[in-house]
Amino acid sequence: MSDRYRRGIDIAEQLANDKLAHFVKSGVAEVAPDFARMVIEFAFGDIYARDALDLRSRELIAIAVLAASGNAGPQLRVHVESAESVGISKAEIVEILMQIALYAGFPTALNALADCHDLLTDDNCLAGACG
Amino acid sequence: MSDRYRRGIDIAEQLANDKLAHFVKSGVAEVAPDFARMVIEFAFGDIYARDALDLRSRELIAIAVLAASGNAGPQLRVHVESAESVGISKAEIVEILMQIALYAGFPTALNALADCHDLLTDDNCLAGACG
Amino acid sequence: MSDRYRRGIDIAEQLANDKLAHFVKSGVAEVAPDFARMVIEFAFGDIYARDALDLRSRELIAIAVLAASGNAGPQLRVHVESAESVGISKAEIVEILMQIALYAGFPTALNALADCHDLLTDDNCLAGACG
Amino acid sequence: MSDRYRRGIDIAEQLANDKLAHFVKSGVAEVAPDFARMVIEFAFGDIYARDALDLRSRELIAIAVLAASGNAGPQLRVHVESAESVGISKAEIVEILMQIALYAGFPTALNALADCHDLLTDDNCLAGACG
Amino acid sequence: MSDRYRRGIDIAEQLANDKLAHFVKSGVAEVAPDFARMVIEFAFGDIYARDALDLRSRELIAIAVLAASGNAGPQLRVHVESAESVGISKAEIVEILMQIALYAGFPTALNALADCHDLLTDDNCLAGACG
Amino acid sequence: MSDRYRRGIDIAEQLANDKLAHFVKSGVAEVAPDFARMVIEFAFGDIYARDALDLRSRELIAIAVLAASGNAGPQLRVHVESAESVGISKAEIVEILMQIALYAGFPTALNALADCHDLLTDDNCLAGACG
Repeated sequence: MSDRYRRGIDIAEQLANDKLAHFVKSGVAEVAPDFARMVIEFAFGDIYARDALDLRSRELIAIAVLAASGNAGPQLRVHVESAESVGISKAEIVEILMQIALYAGFPTALNALADCHDLLTDDNCLAGACG
Repeated sequence: MSDRYRRGIDIAEQLANDKLAHFVKSGVAEVAPDFARMVIEFAFGDIYARDALDLRSRELIAIAVLAASGNAGPQLRVHVESAESVGISKAEIVEILMQIALYAGFPTALNALADCHDLLTDDNCLAGACG
Repeated sequence: MSDRYRRGIDIAEQLANDKLAHFVKSGVAEVAPDFARMVIEFAFGDIYARDALDLRSRELIAIAVLAASGNAGPQLRVHVESAESVGISKAEIVEILMQIALYAGFPTALNALADCHDLLTDDNCLAGACG
Repeated sequence: MSDRYRRGIDIAEQLANDKLAHFVKSGVAEVAPDFARMVIEFAFGDIYARDALDLRSRELIAIAVLAASGNAGPQLRVHVESAESVGISKAEIVEILMQIALYAGFPTALNALADCHDLLTDDNCLAGACG
Repeated sequence: MSDRYRRGIDIAEQLANDKLAHFVKSGVAEVAPDFARMVIEFAFGDIYARDALDLRSRELIAIAVLAASGNAGPQLRVHVESAESVGISKAEIVEILMQIALYAGFPTALNALADCHDLLTDDNCLAGACG
Repeated sequence: MSDRYRRGIDIAEQLANDKLAHFVKSGVAEVAPDFARMVIEFAFGDIYARDALDLRSRELIAIAVLAASGNAGPQLRVHVESAESVGISKAEIVEILMQIALYAGFPTALNALADCHDLLTDDNCLAGACG
């Protein structure tokens, strides 16, 4: 187990109560175990681990870019679920999804709001019970 | 209720037998009520309300761009359902979806045709019963 | 020379005072002559030649989808130049480019307006003198 | 039935044990029969039929580009199912989907791996029994 | 002049030493004056003006999403130039552009870094002298 | 210097007569030196270095996906220049760019052919003299 992997798992678990780590390890790990490891190493062990930007900023960016892409629903949900752990409120997530309408259009923003509807209304979801 | 909102609702309802208005007011209005209002105000109250382009042309454009984007299925369906109200026939919708293959590729066109399959074959759907 | 090619060239030239035909035949024809022919045959000889949608509607769609894609500047300009020949005014083109902001965001709409700035202000350009 | 169509059907069936041909003929053929024919004629009869690139290379390209687009799931699955018939192994498909992360990001690669999870683990699927 | 416009101009000028306001008013205002006004009203007067997210967070999001889109170079540059005014350092901008590689791929991140190269190296640029 | 970096540089230089290495080290290395290193390490040291797919296949994929993305011109040119070193002929590159029209539309394919026009006609370019 590389240092990059260990550092990546630490950050992924800190962010998401095991959510992120489970996500990349689950289905993907079965068909592409090296890739599941690389995602942890590179995304969390290399990029997120850098001090020059705080985790709250990194999660704002992740949510905004994933929502704006229009086809990263599963990843968007994982990051929305982990947002509370770095101090991003539900009200702020709604603002992020509204703002991306400026850059990615109204349908993309509306679909992101619909995709995350339960996470943004149900308190239990942010506590990890909606998966 | 602003003039922009009232004008937007009028046009949305004229287009779609309450379909469009319901769409943006439904799930989204619960988590982002201001945004649901803004979509009505800006999309229909500001843009669609302008006289310089007729509603038939605006719906041709909406259907084409939403289909070509490849990830606006719910919005594409709403506009396909409202097309009849501005004089666009099912045959013309099929032509639009064929033409976007030129710009957005065959998979995008095929997926748009599949997404709207029931709306393009079932007469009742265009009358509003398939949602 | 196939019937599809002859029919395609006829439509391309009718649309654009030789602009479209020249475009696809020029640089591309040197490195991919078969492809230049296929574009004429398929885009104009097969799709545009179909009666079920009039040429004005097809050009509205072409301009809207090309602008919304955000990276088809050369093709957008060719279709904007040919719009007048099917009865689309400059004012209508501006409306199309404004409307796509709803679906593709403000930057894409602003960049399309900037890309076509000269075509939308200079009368000579629409007459074919700006290339 | 044109020569282009016959040649296209031959290649589509050779690739995919009737999978590709069935795909484009199914739902789409009901609402847009001319388009179903055109896809066969152009994609397989015109492009795939060209000798200058072998079918294994063409399928590598199809799988990579469809996966990278992020919203062509049904087409991606069809081409993954046909890959074996041109000598592409499951292990190579996993490599393709990993490599597109470089160009299209991790979420797109992860979603492609998840979309094709059953095809990449179940031997029967590659033999055509999973649809 | 509407309240929305006045509020929008205030925020745009606060962000960017007149940069943003000039940008949307310039070329675009000539061919689409109503649209230039709408962008100010909606983007800055409606969305940015909302208190629920601070301007630093909004600019992080703007830079990340514009860079990830891959074809909003002019808008990306404007927001990078205005970042300092809301407390985002050059080092943080580099981190944002690195992080988007995770979601949008390496070429998009590399091209964003290249597009903003002068703004990220030259101190005078951030003070507004590079346009 | 990590093993991943050394392995990455080896592959990048083998592919491209120093072209790829120069590319990522140049402008980007000035503002984001860690990222320039990471690209070499991850793209070439981790992904390209894997034996399960040969370099010819990897370059087919790179060229196809970069061309289909529509906004990775500089990277597309670098990979087209390196194609010869892994046994991909100019005629095959033209076929790849034609085939992506199926998935990404005609404008994207035409623009890719135009972007690489000099590389596909001038023998010296493939030998590295066109930059």
